[in-house]
Amino acid sequence: MNPTESSCEITSISETAAPCSPAGSRVLPMGDNFRWEGASVTEYKERADHWCGVLRTVLVGESGEPIPFQVRYFEIAPAGFSSRESHSHEHAVIVLRGRGEVQLGESVHELGFGDVVYVAPHEVHQFRNQTSEPFGFLCIVDARRGSPSGS
Amino acid sequence: MNPTESSCEITSISETAAPCSPAGSRVLPMGDNFRWEGASVTEYKERADHWCGVLRTVLVGESGEPIPFQVRYFEIAPAGFSSRESHSHEHAVIVLRGRGEVQLGESVHELGFGDVVYVAPHEVHQFRNQTSEPFGFLCIVDARRGSPSGS
Repeated sequence: MNPTESSCEITSISETAAPCSPAGSRVLPMGDNFRWEGASVTEYKERADHWCGVLRTVLVGESGEPIPFQVRYFEIAPAGFSSRESHSHEHAVIVLRGRGEVQLGESVHELGFGDVVYVAPHEVHQFRNQTSEPFGFLCIVDARRGSPSGS
Repeated sequence: MNPTESSCEITSISETAAPCSPAGSRVLPMGDNFRWEGASVTEYKERADHWCGVLRTVLVGESGEPIPFQVRYFEIAPAGFSSRESHSHEHAVIVLRGRGEVQLGESVHELGFGDVVYVAPHEVHQFRNQTSEPFGFLCIVDARRGSPSGS
């Protein structure tokens, strides 16, 4: 199945305020259903070109922390997929929920809990969920990254 | 219980070769028991002063990847604990396995699966496992970090 032809749906988007106090140590407990109180859940990108059913939660790195990276949690709905894209910054990915697959260049790899993916600079990549359950993963990136370009 | 007075034990340490090919995209599947084939599992530090029962696995960042951070998996054995220390670099921690606790300054927080901890610069911190099961978490740090100092 060409993922760009698939249908997918996000059932809900909850928006809560991100922590905005001066950066200090903190604990962000995970609540039900892979949601973190105080962390905002947003759609992946502003424009829905070439992606479908992807939610993003920034866990660390958007609250004034002086760190060179960001830790985000992405969740792809059943039949959803991320942009097929490449860019100069790397991704480090660790699967937390469900199963899915990643395309790295011409290769496709099945993924499950705990699996780690390193996406090298300029590698064309796409994450896809062809299961009936949500597929969720941490994605860590350079905080000073540039913009991706589709391919 | 003062953790420095507790006893703990690491039952096994398996050492396998870390990937050493030029950095390229790759998938590191998680095997049984929170171990990743191709990633070396080592004791936390060379000297066992003020820590006990801690294993470290570097998942991303020690194989030539040009990234400003490292992703490590730490596992603390029952009754084990990390150094009580502070340093200028931050930690971003996400719990993957079991339950434990973190001391941040004078506060102690219980932790379980999916909970996120941000340790700010110069915050005194210690991770402890007072359960009967392993306590495992991802710990992401600046790749150019300095040395910790105990406190």
